Amino acid sequence: QGILERLDAGEIVIGDGGFVFALEKRGYVKAGPWTPEATVEHPEAVRQLHREFLRAGSNVLQTFTFYASDDKLENRGNYVAEKITGQKVNEAACDIAKEVAKEGDALVAGGVSQTPSYLSCKDKAEVKAVFRKQLEVFMKKGVDFLIAEYFEHVEEAVWAVEVLKESGKPVAATMCIGPEGDMHGVPPGQCAVQLVKAGASIVGINCHFDSDTCLKTVKLMKEGLEAANLKAYLMSQPLAFHTPDCGKQGFIDLPEFPFGLEPRIVTRWDVQKYARKAYDLGIRYIGGCCGFEPYHIRAIAEELAPERGFLPEASEKHGSWGNSLSMHTKPWVRARARKEYWENLKPASGRPYCPSMSKPDGWGVTKGARELMQQKEATTEQQLNELFQKQK
Amino acid sequence: QGILERLDAGEIVIGDGGFVFALEKRGYVKAGPWTPEATVEHPEAVRQLHREFLRAGSNVLQTFTFYASDDKLENRGNYVAEKITGQKVNEAACDIAKEVAKEGDALVAGGVSQTPSYLSCKDKAEVKAVFRKQLEVFMKKGVDFLIAEYFEHVEEAVWAVEVLKESGKPVAATMCIGPEGDMHGVPPGQCAVQLVKAGASIVGINCHFDSDTCLKTVKLMKEGLEAANLKAYLMSQPLAFHTPDCGKQGFIDLPEFPFGLEPRIVTRWDVQKYARKAYDLGIRYIGGCCGFEPYHIRAIAEELAPERGFLPEASEKHGSWGNSLSMHTKPWVRARARKEYWENLKPASGRPYCPSMSKPDGWGVTKGARELMQQKEATTEQQLNELFQKQK
Amino acid sequence: QGILERLDAGEIVIGDGGFVFALEKRGYVKAGPWTPEATVEHPEAVRQLHREFLRAGSNVLQTFTFYASDDKLENRGNYVAEKITGQKVNEAACDIAKEVAKEGDALVAGGVSQTPSYLSCKDKAEVKAVFRKQLEVFMKKGVDFLIAEYFEHVEEAVWAVEVLKESGKPVAATMCIGPEGDMHGVPPGQCAVQLVKAGASIVGINCHFDSDTCLKTVKLMKEGLEAANLKAYLMSQPLAFHTPDCGKQGFIDLPEFPFGLEPRIVTRWDVQKYARKAYDLGIRYIGGCCGFEPYHIRAIAEELAPERGFLPEASEKHGSWGNSLSMHTKPWVRARARKEYWENLKPASGRPYCPSMSKPDGWGVTKGARELMQQKEATTEQQLNELFQKQK
Amino acid sequence: QGILERLDAGEIVIGDGGFVFALEKRGYVKAGPWTPEATVEHPEAVRQLHREFLRAGSNVLQTFTFYASDDKLENRGNYVAEKITGQKVNEAACDIAKEVAKEGDALVAGGVSQTPSYLSCKDKAEVKAVFRKQLEVFMKKGVDFLIAEYFEHVEEAVWAVEVLKESGKPVAATMCIGPEGDMHGVPPGQCAVQLVKAGASIVGINCHFDSDTCLKTVKLMKEGLEAANLKAYLMSQPLAFHTPDCGKQGFIDLPEFPFGLEPRIVTRWDVQKYARKAYDLGIRYIGGCCGFEPYHIRAIAEELAPERGFLPEASEKHGSWGNSLSMHTKPWVRARARKEYWENLKPASGRPYCPSMSKPDGWGVTKGARELMQQKEATTEQQLNELFQKQK
Repeated sequence: QGILERLDAGEIVIGDGGFVFALEKRGYVKAGPWTPEATVEHPEAVRQLHREFLRAGSNVLQTFTFYASDDKLENRGNYVAEKITGQKVNEAACDIAKEVAKEGDALVAGGVSQTPSYLSCKDKAEVKAVFRKQLEVFMKKGVDFLIAEYFEHVEEAVWAVEVLKESGKPVAATMCIGPEGDMHGVPPGQCAVQLVKAGASIVGINCHFDSDTCLKTVKLMKEGLEAANLKAYLMSQPLAFHTPDCGKQGFIDLPEFPFGLEPRIVTRWDVQKYARKAYDLGIRYIGGCCGFEPYHIRAIAEELAPERGFLPEASEKHGSWGNSLSMHTKPWVRARARKEYWENLKPASGRPYCPSMSKPDGWGVTKGARELMQQKEATTEQQLNELFQKQK
Repeated sequence: QGILERLDAGEIVIGDGGFVFALEKRGYVKAGPWTPEATVEHPEAVRQLHREFLRAGSNVLQTFTFYASDDKLENRGNYVAEKITGQKVNEAACDIAKEVAKEGDALVAGGVSQTPSYLSCKDKAEVKAVFRKQLEVFMKKGVDFLIAEYFEHVEEAVWAVEVLKESGKPVAATMCIGPEGDMHGVPPGQCAVQLVKAGASIVGINCHFDSDTCLKTVKLMKEGLEAANLKAYLMSQPLAFHTPDCGKQGFIDLPEFPFGLEPRIVTRWDVQKYARKAYDLGIRYIGGCCGFEPYHIRAIAEELAPERGFLPEASEKHGSWGNSLSMHTKPWVRARARKEYWENLKPASGRPYCPSMSKPDGWGVTKGARELMQQKEATTEQQLNELFQKQK
Repeated sequence: QGILERLDAGEIVIGDGGFVFALEKRGYVKAGPWTPEATVEHPEAVRQLHREFLRAGSNVLQTFTFYASDDKLENRGNYVAEKITGQKVNEAACDIAKEVAKEGDALVAGGVSQTPSYLSCKDKAEVKAVFRKQLEVFMKKGVDFLIAEYFEHVEEAVWAVEVLKESGKPVAATMCIGPEGDMHGVPPGQCAVQLVKAGASIVGINCHFDSDTCLKTVKLMKEGLEAANLKAYLMSQPLAFHTPDCGKQGFIDLPEFPFGLEPRIVTRWDVQKYARKAYDLGIRYIGGCCGFEPYHIRAIAEELAPERGFLPEASEKHGSWGNSLSMHTKPWVRARARKEYWENLKPASGRPYCPSMSKPDGWGVTKGARELMQQKEATTEQQLNELFQKQK
Repeated sequence: QGILERLDAGEIVIGDGGFVFALEKRGYVKAGPWTPEATVEHPEAVRQLHREFLRAGSNVLQTFTFYASDDKLENRGNYVAEKITGQKVNEAACDIAKEVAKEGDALVAGGVSQTPSYLSCKDKAEVKAVFRKQLEVFMKKGVDFLIAEYFEHVEEAVWAVEVLKESGKPVAATMCIGPEGDMHGVPPGQCAVQLVKAGASIVGINCHFDSDTCLKTVKLMKEGLEAANLKAYLMSQPLAFHTPDCGKQGFIDLPEFPFGLEPRIVTRWDVQKYARKAYDLGIRYIGGCCGFEPYHIRAIAEELAPERGFLPEASEKHGSWGNSLSMHTKPWVRARARKEYWENLKPASGRPYCPSMSKPDGWGVTKGARELMQQKEATTEQQLNELFQKQK
């Protein structure tokens, strides 16, 4: 059954977690470029991560094709071997995802994300050509449906959806924006409307913000669609980091990004709360993005097990709400084998010299620089640099 | 070259990270029992983790045989399938570790850890028989050397070392104690002396405490050995969690153990500081325990690259001190591409409703209970329960 | 020169600090009732506090008549001696303030605040009669102008202003509300408009919130007045506690209120930042409320000394920006004798087991209870109790 | 009855709070010099503070003669008017304290503290002459007993006690040291022994550390005296600031000293816990030092009311354990009117961008500088400067 059949039937679809962050910690992705050449270089590592998410309950395996557009890979060409072309990366990603999907009951989704071409002001035709090249691989390899994700500008997201819709496959589209809207100031509700009008059957938010902010933004999308009398399924794939202190552009501006985010990592209990809230909000495609490890995805599946009627395979290695501690030697550890304990725990950081919130960077940048930045990033890179240097 | 030849030659030996915690998050180990039947059930997952540590710079692959003694597996028998015997688990663990070790320049170490038999007051012969059964597998499979780790009582650790020495292979021994000493009150210096006298060539600390506490304890061991005119190599494999608030029995008593430890996870920069301090203290076998992921092990290898003269394979996907950010579009993110930035960052937790330190549990238990507990845990389980109930 | 002449001439008027909190710590006011019978019982203590504020730079001494309406004092009658009538309290308060005002260049303002009569749904005439009784004392004693402060409902504040205007004296009116508006939901801008239309020459906010929230609310008042083409001077007297975590009804709902607020107390540097922001926003009557001690008021006067051209008397005992440390024996203490140091210091709490933010109480109360509460408090006291009990 | 008669009779003697900090906030003492010329300049302010402590339960009023030795006042001569001699300051301090003491049942204690003469290596005779000059005033004015307090070097404290004993009056002696001992490394136990041998009837600790550290140090003193078979009453007057992060030299080295200590201020409940612990440790002279306001002293008196049989006067304005909230309109505020609530509250700081602990300054100073400093401060001031400059 396809993605829309499942959703139409009232099923909850569980997404997968964050590949670039998980594989960075495992040693296969470089922070900074964040490109997925590991599909060619180390397929076993990518395959294993897919398997873990499948086992944890994912109903969708996204091809590991984040930032795998040719323009992005060329951009980082100096470090990825020349022979690893975009086509090879995308093909390998499809092969691996399909291979693992067969081990369970999962769909494979081909994914595209925002491009340097758009940010450097290439025109619509050029940007669409970039997406189309990835789409060709997805069609050749026979993915089940398509996802356009991690877009900061709705204009580019709409172009992506339009290209993906050429395939005739269902398309999901998620933006990495917060309640303030896209980088040109288009509010979330309006973004959702444009995406659905462009052909997306599923819309929502992924990345850049924690689950609270993410759900707040999906709610605005939902209200936008309702006001416009449009129908679409809702989707959320937030960060697995607490980011109450984020500004408009999300966790990238936090001083801790990307190598000091550890104290912000959410617990499995935080994820259970997120899954419940997402469900209550009417979201039916519930997954995660950067920071989501397999056990976080399992937490979604466990929280929604009453609604879904079954537990994921990996729950054989997990006691619900800590009940695997009930045989512990120490009585006070056994006392933790209950829901109330973990639900109410306010975990300490063990870091008494660290604060609980940060001021995002970019605040120090002159207003002029920020305004420029909010238009088109790449065009203003040099200008930004100059302004940044000037004000220091 | 064997472990001792390497150490004799002045090499720094890098250990691996924490299998039970990493595989718990990946969905293959159950928290609570913490037993390694995954070697039989899901060898691909164990193999992949070994590979990641190897790639990150580990010179030693420990067989995933933690808590794989027959008495422990039986103890948890109700949940592990009967056909998965201790022998099978241990053999599979050896096979996997040896297979991966060949992919690089790593040694394989067979590992034993504390047993329920000791805690339930079985006699010396019985406890030794348990270790001997695991040793037989290690000898049959031809591991390079042996590790006795995670002992809370030096008496049991000595028995383990004595058994392992029967093999003629080099033996390392680490205890999971803090500066206050073992659970019977034997100080770290004296523990080290007893272990070396029993035949250990390498002694130190693993698990239960963060690196600061761990190094403090290894220092006491070192001083004890010096005072006794004994020679041995030093080894440290601490937690990857900040635990300044731990009591005598370490992180198990923290209210966050084991499902709320996320905000305590150390960054790669914390690990670099640890590696440097360990090196400066004279430790030459430097690794990690619970919480250590591949990127943490890589941080040890990167910090000590000047001394060792080379970087691990996984550093191809890592810019030293964040320099992979130097091409980022945003100038303030590029500004993070330097050592001073990450060295001085005090990362926020994003958790303004959480404290920075916890009171360990067990404080609430009556003094009598705690005293009983400090003798032999399992014998007093029922008594503890009763006392615990009484005082509630 | 009167208050309006000063403001008309472009002067900055500095208010005084928080009497009930300061005198509670000195042992003369009871938290809970917060009534000012100390004017009769211990005039020397009230006099001394006035003197300290005067010395710190206050241009206005408010009579210590907070909650000194007859209905409030009777309400608490069981603990204040019968002979201490409202009239005596108000008269003594005037006498003390006038006596001290003569020692410097300060005006005396008679103050009224919200009444139990309003909260228990007495009619307009009855409520006005309560204010009028206090006003009679103020007129007899010849105060310079009048302040209606600490109103949660603009309706009652308007009644108070109408009564006070009968005197012909200038009237200032401040509400203890946040950006969400008064307890009936009237937005701040509209509150300001109603108050000015009722006759207030100065409007603004006092109490219940920290300076950031207070200024945000005054800004909304300012915008409301501008939109209505009305003119009035602006006034702010916030808490001296950090309360970023407050809900709609301010610090009273914080779990720390009123006996655990210490870690929230602002520093003198926080106050300097507040004074600057208030000034930049166009506020010209700048003071403080609960928590403001004399040194906090001095910080306002010091920050605005460049604009005002002089320092307050108490600055003879204070080096600007810590320069009194420049002779310290220890070089690192001397190194603190500069603006940059104190401006950027993020002071630690010394409380590693405490969080940085709290969830306000009242969240646990049923929605029904909260709605009732937002109407008229006293009428619903019993109902609230019942609802509160029911839901527990 | 004199101080020793009271103690001999088993009474608990309650000290007073911190004059220099309280009067700094009221505008009468300059931070940095911290000298008490206010006794001459603003006697009404000093008198009022004495009254408040008396009312709060103090059984002893210390003359406000801290740092009132001639050498100290001269040192700061450029800012205190010439006509305000040390003799005048000391005489006025005695007059004020005696005047207020008559209003209740309090003793007056003349106090001396450490001198610049000692720190600049003047000889024993010269240093003693400085103390003798203050003593002459105390004798002329007829104080009840004498206190030598705030000594960092036991040698100087012993000299002070020897001088004070010439009077024939009882002498109390407290040092401002922590468990590591005095600045020359003399351990607390040995300090206590030397002080008692010099003639002190009461010994203990004041200032520099929070109550936990203070009590730990008094305990060491107690053990030292017991080991030496000496008898003396014990005394504690700690800071009213949480300072778990202090180094050897106490709160002066904290980055927050002295203008950013607000978030560390203890609550009245913290003080009740301190009073109980002090009592349980056998301390019978229990007071406070810097940061202790009248309500903190009252908390000592309230905690020990069961033992003493009465409450202080100021408790008429205080409900024990928050019971004055029991009539509050809001049910959740009424719910705070109980001991368990305040005893267990972990108060939030409202400062999510601030950490809970600081690294003391002085760590950045070279080891050489610190060692010099630990000998005699004033002699090395120039050297320290040079070293400090060099290393920057």
